[in-house]
Amino acid sequence: MHAYRSHNCAALTAANVGETVRLSGWVHRVRDHGGVLFIDLRDHFGVTQILCDGDSAAFAELEKVRSEWCVRIDGTVKARDPDLVNPKLPTGEIEVYVRELEVLGAADELPLMVFGDQEYPEETRLRYRYLDLRREAMQRNMTLRSDVVASMRKRMWDQGFREYQTPIITASSPEGARDFLVPSRLHPGKFYALPQAPQQFKQLIMVSGFDKYFQIAPCFRDEDPRADRSPTDFYQLDLEMSFVEQQDVFDVIQPVLTGVFEEFGGGRKVDQDWPQISYKDAALWYGTDKPDLRNPIKMQVVSEHFRGSGFAIFAKLLEQEGTEIRAIPAPGGGSRKFCDRMNAFAQKEGLPGMGYIFWRDQGEGMEAAGPLAKNIGPERTEAIRQQLGLGVGDAAFFLGGKPKAFEKVAGKARDVIGEELNLTEKDRFAFAWIVDFPIYEQDEETGAIDFEHNPFSMPQGGMEALQGNPLDVRGYQYDLACNGYELVSGAIRNHKPEIMLKAFELAGYGEDEVKSRFGALFNAFHYGAPPHGGCAAGIDRIVMLLADEANIREVMMFPMNQRAEDLMMDAPSDPTSDQLMELGLRIIPQDQ
Amino acid sequence: MHAYRSHNCAALTAANVGETVRLSGWVHRVRDHGGVLFIDLRDHFGVTQILCDGDSAAFAELEKVRSEWCVRIDGTVKARDPDLVNPKLPTGEIEVYVRELEVLGAADELPLMVFGDQEYPEETRLRYRYLDLRREAMQRNMTLRSDVVASMRKRMWDQGFREYQTPIITASSPEGARDFLVPSRLHPGKFYALPQAPQQFKQLIMVSGFDKYFQIAPCFRDEDPRADRSPTDFYQLDLEMSFVEQQDVFDVIQPVLTGVFEEFGGGRKVDQDWPQISYKDAALWYGTDKPDLRNPIKMQVVSEHFRGSGFAIFAKLLEQEGTEIRAIPAPGGGSRKFCDRMNAFAQKEGLPGMGYIFWRDQGEGMEAAGPLAKNIGPERTEAIRQQLGLGVGDAAFFLGGKPKAFEKVAGKARDVIGEELNLTEKDRFAFAWIVDFPIYEQDEETGAIDFEHNPFSMPQGGMEALQGNPLDVRGYQYDLACNGYELVSGAIRNHKPEIMLKAFELAGYGEDEVKSRFGALFNAFHYGAPPHGGCAAGIDRIVMLLADEANIREVMMFPMNQRAEDLMMDAPSDPTSDQLMELGLRIIPQDQ
Repeated sequence: MHAYRSHNCAALTAANVGETVRLSGWVHRVRDHGGVLFIDLRDHFGVTQILCDGDSAAFAELEKVRSEWCVRIDGTVKARDPDLVNPKLPTGEIEVYVRELEVLGAADELPLMVFGDQEYPEETRLRYRYLDLRREAMQRNMTLRSDVVASMRKRMWDQGFREYQTPIITASSPEGARDFLVPSRLHPGKFYALPQAPQQFKQLIMVSGFDKYFQIAPCFRDEDPRADRSPTDFYQLDLEMSFVEQQDVFDVIQPVLTGVFEEFGGGRKVDQDWPQISYKDAALWYGTDKPDLRNPIKMQVVSEHFRGSGFAIFAKLLEQEGTEIRAIPAPGGGSRKFCDRMNAFAQKEGLPGMGYIFWRDQGEGMEAAGPLAKNIGPERTEAIRQQLGLGVGDAAFFLGGKPKAFEKVAGKARDVIGEELNLTEKDRFAFAWIVDFPIYEQDEETGAIDFEHNPFSMPQGGMEALQGNPLDVRGYQYDLACNGYELVSGAIRNHKPEIMLKAFELAGYGEDEVKSRFGALFNAFHYGAPPHGGCAAGIDRIVMLLADEANIREVMMFPMNQRAEDLMMDAPSDPTSDQLMELGLRIIPQDQ
Repeated sequence: MHAYRSHNCAALTAANVGETVRLSGWVHRVRDHGGVLFIDLRDHFGVTQILCDGDSAAFAELEKVRSEWCVRIDGTVKARDPDLVNPKLPTGEIEVYVRELEVLGAADELPLMVFGDQEYPEETRLRYRYLDLRREAMQRNMTLRSDVVASMRKRMWDQGFREYQTPIITASSPEGARDFLVPSRLHPGKFYALPQAPQQFKQLIMVSGFDKYFQIAPCFRDEDPRADRSPTDFYQLDLEMSFVEQQDVFDVIQPVLTGVFEEFGGGRKVDQDWPQISYKDAALWYGTDKPDLRNPIKMQVVSEHFRGSGFAIFAKLLEQEGTEIRAIPAPGGGSRKFCDRMNAFAQKEGLPGMGYIFWRDQGEGMEAAGPLAKNIGPERTEAIRQQLGLGVGDAAFFLGGKPKAFEKVAGKARDVIGEELNLTEKDRFAFAWIVDFPIYEQDEETGAIDFEHNPFSMPQGGMEALQGNPLDVRGYQYDLACNGYELVSGAIRNHKPEIMLKAFELAGYGEDEVKSRFGALFNAFHYGAPPHGGCAAGIDRIVMLLADEANIREVMMFPMNQRAEDLMMDAPSDPTSDQLMELGLRIIPQDQ
């Protein structure tokens, strides 16, 4: 017989009754029924009930065993009494009568219980991660993550993509976040950087003629702590293709993601229709470039109904250039109580408030209620109602000013309204491509033009488009939104050196700076670069959505805490003076 | 029609004749047959011949096109004349008559030709890697690497393993090589390290109850330059299993590797029988712990034949303790010329020389020739011949002294003899497990005991074995040799804290040091650690063997040069003073 097990802890069924078996695992739970010990023996695969009484030579030894001891037992499989069968367990029909016991690994007093649902401070969980990970939810999350990544790989292979590994110790990358640096020993005083993403390398792989690349790629950014991201690294499904247009990239990634969400979504609905919404429309309709389309609410411009109206605040606002009035329809929100609550929400978010109208049944007809309706009169109110397609029991909220100033709050209000009125469908994954991102943005104060997103995207219209107003230039650049999160970001790249130079010039970068900051790509583009594009999908975020977790640390095996410390491994730590000497570095003493 | 291609450059056959098609790719080669231009258009998938003459509107444009320009053409598929069909190309039956041309990316004068077999200095190849990678051999090597890794993954999944990602920014690891450090910005003066291997993490994953782990894992070692290794990082197929013995690990990895070698070995023979050879026997038989078993030569101890013999040098040597005489049989090496050449080889390797005997036909019988035979006389000579199983036309070489002093040269001599006498089978992959490694070694000069290999292996015999002479302790530790290279290394781990402490004590490490250097593992072992073990296979090395390449840079996409510089990306480079300030570091000025 094998030294440790003839079966795993999920394998034995009624078919094995009478067999002599060997199991290994952890003591999940011990129950002492006066002279009979019952133990749930757990391994990665499942749980098997083992028992022992004074007739067994192992009884005295087994009595000493405590939770989370790792043990090996030999025993006989017995059928459970029919009324003790547990139909929820694969092994629920049997139990194993223990004849021999070996303690493989004893356990000290536990800082964290594996059995049960007790909550522990995150510091405890991270310091004793090997205990925390034994808990059912964590086993499930880690298994899910592994299976999701495996499924992504298979789906990419099936589409003819190959995975190519790009360097991890490399040069500073221009994604714009902060690099992690790695001092060089062979070149003291010089530093490598960990890649923020394989962006430049994957583009170089295209210039090298490989046609279809993907990688489950670790990305490193020295970020300030936030609950939903790792302070050090994260993983992307990164892909790039040559000789493609935007739609080709969509056609590759959509089946991969719908496939993964269907495979691991636990039956939740996965939208097959992915609308393409321009950045501009997304801002208007949803107040964000990552809208949650499970929520049917779509905002609308209603400026005309307020221009010159009796509602002086809006009427006056509209006299300023660049202002608009937008409405958030709220089907089913037609009560003063709800409207007041939403108004208070807007105030909490820093706006003066949110005007509203709601419609109620007045016996012989509909009545529009709320101060706004009174101010603008019944005709305008009715025109608004008709534009928004609302009726009795519904409400509409209004925000006015320069869109930039209220769009974000409008988006949040839309979320809250959708939630509170139960308009936002649960158990569904709703996707939308956000397209036509502007290439440039203007600093409100300085008036300076800079890249809005990422400087490597091809402007729609190419060189010609760059001759006009930079703020009008749209890029072949896209994000995928899912349930309010950005899951994917990508672009068709700018592979023409002369367009690249011009694009950077508009953002205030001279040729020398382009050459020094993006030299490898810029040089490569002078040797027959193919048109190419791609995208990157955030794996941690996808797993979080599938696992229904809000904290990234629930879907990572060994995460850092929010101060970027590994409490289990004790990192970061002090270097030795030899190490510093070899690297040619000295630590500046910190005042504090 | 798609903007860039209706087919790739390997797709068109006689079945497409008459069709209008669109192709994109690189100009591989241009031939101007007086008024008719022939171009080999190349993409990742293959080559298609395109042609054009003055009748086409595209002719004038096409005349300007040069090697490695990236172009899109529209044209008509035509059948080639029967005598111009190229049966070696999938597209060899057709050519495409060009009607329209678009230059997608022009190319400057090339520092490196893609077409042809011209050799270039490595610096040129690395600086213009995107051109170098377009060459056929590099496309093949990168594709091979990707396919090998994909195949490994599938084979691991098929055996029930899951891939779990371990941290890349972490704490210093105890593999014994030099760490790459990463300064912390949030904790100025403190450093993370990049993992030399996921050793501790994979063991912690076992303690966390995951049963079967694998990872295609990047490993980082700040190594001094050498041709066959990367100065920064390399990849391993890393695996670990709980509740296993040594043979269980062998049974998992053997089918993965034989499968990969059969799938990608191009028909070369892949041994299915993997002998298990003790470290001690390997040293004796092959003079190395990574023997090349394609070579049938097995060395033998022949001390008895020389003890008290007329060959004074060996006879005297044998009077010292710990000395031996070993023979290298050389079937077919029976000529003075060959024997002298091998003697010279040994001298070049720093030994006084290598005695030899060779046997030749003397008409009425066999004659043993060479000075050694004369010195020890015919009886001893004949006994040696019989022990080694040699005959006419064969030779044997002899080395004497303390085995440690000559074993390495003996191993090299065995290699050379095998090569020169054509004994070493080509086109074959021969594997052997080297087992029973000693846990400890003794420093010749100081007499100090230290770990021979890796401090995490379980000693055979457990605690009891540690009570005796440390130098007698063998570990459950193993390497896999293939064709003279170490492909895999692994062990059953020491998961018992008390045995771990004792093992370290013997090597001179106190409890405090164990706790501070290996605290995470040592702590974890106090909470119900399962018996576990695993191994790691060197992916770069495997791909090198399969691709028949001797330089690791031929199987990496973007390698560093031997000075650990990335010439294309310009790494390492100078940090900005802001970066140094944020990290709390100052660079020590170097003298030179």
